[in-house]
Amino acid sequence: MDAFFKPASVAVIGASPTVGKLSYIIMESLLSSGYGGDIYPVNPHYDEVEGRRCYPDIASIGKEVDLAVFAVPAPAIAGLLKEAAPFINAAVIVSGGFSETGEAGRKAERELLAIAEKGRVRVIGPNCIGIFDAVSNLDTFFIDRERVKRPGRGHIALLSQSGSFALTAMDVFASEGIGVTRVVSYGNKMDVNESDCLDYLAEDDETRVVVIYIEGVNDGRRFVEAAKRCAARKTVMALKVGREGAGKKAAGSHTGAVAGRYEIYRAAFKEAGIIELSGYEDILDGCMALNKLTPVDGKRIMILTDGGGLGVGIADASSASGFEVAELPRAKVAQLRGVFPDYFAVANPIDLTGSVTDEWFAEALDVALSGDDYDIAIVASLWGPPHLTDNLPALIGEVARKHGKPVLICSPGGGYAREKNVLFEAAGLPVYYTPEGAVRGARIVAGLSLKR
Amino acid sequence: MDAFFKPASVAVIGASPTVGKLSYIIMESLLSSGYGGDIYPVNPHYDEVEGRRCYPDIASIGKEVDLAVFAVPAPAIAGLLKEAAPFINAAVIVSGGFSETGEAGRKAERELLAIAEKGRVRVIGPNCIGIFDAVSNLDTFFIDRERVKRPGRGHIALLSQSGSFALTAMDVFASEGIGVTRVVSYGNKMDVNESDCLDYLAEDDETRVVVIYIEGVNDGRRFVEAAKRCAARKTVMALKVGREGAGKKAAGSHTGAVAGRYEIYRAAFKEAGIIELSGYEDILDGCMALNKLTPVDGKRIMILTDGGGLGVGIADASSASGFEVAELPRAKVAQLRGVFPDYFAVANPIDLTGSVTDEWFAEALDVALSGDDYDIAIVASLWGPPHLTDNLPALIGEVARKHGKPVLICSPGGGYAREKNVLFEAAGLPVYYTPEGAVRGARIVAGLSLKR
Repeated sequence: MDAFFKPASVAVIGASPTVGKLSYIIMESLLSSGYGGDIYPVNPHYDEVEGRRCYPDIASIGKEVDLAVFAVPAPAIAGLLKEAAPFINAAVIVSGGFSETGEAGRKAERELLAIAEKGRVRVIGPNCIGIFDAVSNLDTFFIDRERVKRPGRGHIALLSQSGSFALTAMDVFASEGIGVTRVVSYGNKMDVNESDCLDYLAEDDETRVVVIYIEGVNDGRRFVEAAKRCAARKTVMALKVGREGAGKKAAGSHTGAVAGRYEIYRAAFKEAGIIELSGYEDILDGCMALNKLTPVDGKRIMILTDGGGLGVGIADASSASGFEVAELPRAKVAQLRGVFPDYFAVANPIDLTGSVTDEWFAEALDVALSGDDYDIAIVASLWGPPHLTDNLPALIGEVARKHGKPVLICSPGGGYAREKNVLFEAAGLPVYYTPEGAVRGARIVAGLSLKR
Repeated sequence: MDAFFKPASVAVIGASPTVGKLSYIIMESLLSSGYGGDIYPVNPHYDEVEGRRCYPDIASIGKEVDLAVFAVPAPAIAGLLKEAAPFINAAVIVSGGFSETGEAGRKAERELLAIAEKGRVRVIGPNCIGIFDAVSNLDTFFIDRERVKRPGRGHIALLSQSGSFALTAMDVFASEGIGVTRVVSYGNKMDVNESDCLDYLAEDDETRVVVIYIEGVNDGRRFVEAAKRCAARKTVMALKVGREGAGKKAAGSHTGAVAGRYEIYRAAFKEAGIIELSGYEDILDGCMALNKLTPVDGKRIMILTDGGGLGVGIADASSASGFEVAELPRAKVAQLRGVFPDYFAVANPIDLTGSVTDEWFAEALDVALSGDDYDIAIVASLWGPPHLTDNLPALIGEVARKHGKPVLICSPGGGYAREKNVLFEAAGLPVYYTPEGAVRGARIVAGLSLKR
């Protein structure tokens, strides 16, 4: 698997100088990503591509190549793979037109697999986008960087059957400042699948969090075993799409996946210690949280706010997500009552009202998180109250660090809030714009199962 | 009630020239909102406030005043209201310190109500933010416009027990381009409550959509009657917060509301023809949709995409929300098969893949929406595919208008997508950044009940 994630050299089969062609964009991606290994264009029709010598076939390169990326029409793949097999260790086949298209495609894919197995070549794809690796700077994605940004380096790995999902997530991660280690889109996964990737990531020191986007898993037993090993060392979360009716059918025509009964997936996730996700928003909000925070084992949540209504909304969403909105202990109530005006609600949520100051926010959080009454907190700060200043985020960040507990920010609003919320991000605190979003993030940090 | 929404004159009791004081900000709000009536500062300590003559008491103004805004500490309210009652028709009391604080506060509030009833003065509040009216340009909100933007004029009215919720929604509406008619925060609602407002809005030609944010309703029977009358003419949706446990308790200390059993609210909403909302995201996504689209009665949804995974996610969320992801009729499949490459998935969802063009997107939507097979559509366009151009949004907008059916856009992504999505907004189509968000918007346009 190292040939995929840390290849010493990469060949692009079907490399082309024609701007806009997939193979052109793949060359561009490889060249502009900062990848440090050798890059070989391969195409009998050209002598040079992007200023590099272009080889008529892979044999002509004259040495073994770790990874070959195939970006040619489906009917040409089998022949080219057979020809290349003796000289390569691994292949990414981006081309579609295989098992996702019906019986003829399934047959073609089986033939491809036979060629790969005989030649001892591991294959990602077909019908996939391939690999983006922020550690080795490998990028085989065939969408240009103007349209889809690439995220920076972080500690989250993303495994996806769907290429469009992987691309979208990368683009959004990049714009939200969420870092990644390795992103793999394996499409029809005729050979390498989520279980192989989980095995690899279990041993990967760079990766602390694994997100899996699943349309269908073929070998459930193997998946559970691999996920269990990985989840013992990392936070693993999974979204299974194509759950029922139309979605299930669509998943089948999309990557040829057998979607299966959702209840079976739920049980498998539970057995493997995987956090079950309910949709795209869970992935995004969960990754925003885990990009900055360390997972915690516990469900007692503290809610602080300067907007009573917001606090009520977060309490509702927290209860609905399986959190315990645990009562503020009497001693702490007395302590805070001694500091705050009478009209503050000193309970859980704590409502500091529009009279709040930076210091009161920090003090309330400090008292609440001291000792062992709470595992996690959401600070819901509206920026309307006139006494709040730019110092608030750093103060809250300090208290969070002091107690070593995850603190998430919920701060809905328009332009002014968005401008100020950058300061929370800078203080190491993830920011959400809705009560439900903050609670989605918190649920995943706390590793709570999805409630039904 | 016209004295609240179309007052000929407004007095600010406790007006002050001290920058940052509530009464100062209220004067600022009134003066900068473009309100066309007379504005009278009232405060015995000043001769002039903001360049206007300041009156020692309301009697000194020498004529009847439609609306008085009280922004003085709670203990002073009763005396001032008694003094003002003969000269005013309506009052907004923003001050807190009444029933939300306990028994003494409840008593003070009952006394206030007696004074108001005796003096035939209708009262909004206490413990509220008051009124923002984009039709008459009245703005009594005491948060300055730098921190909380005010939305433009539209056709949505917002009723809220919580002031912070009303402010947050206004700020977000302003930044999302959602227009409003009247926004009312009635806080403890000792006199005017949601039912009075519903009665008023039922007759209000400017308002087509009513959103209600409820912590607790006191007179359920009256509420159902008022809501029923209003919902017969307008789209009415409601969020009940403080559903259980901590949230319920917090709602009580927030506006003194008796939260009650949630099941009773659900039944009331159903009886009244109110669309039940599950949280803040429903409000925001629903209003984004209804700001641009006309409600529709029907649940057959068409999903078009250029990203297979995204289509599957939307199909899942649609089924989970009560939509019928109805199969594409055979004749239409045949028609589209004749136009599209073989590898496009021609079903529901229709997946046009990364090879999509603007015209294919428009043609697929045109064929799908023709006749009576679908009530509503979500077009999930990722901007990654290289052939998509800036013409796509106008083309989709045209097809939507041609068929007179609501079309929502789901277009997740980072910078590039956000830049391009402005074109969808300009074409009259609401844009969502997650599958779940688009489906929340669609559910409310289609008036579907919340599934449990």
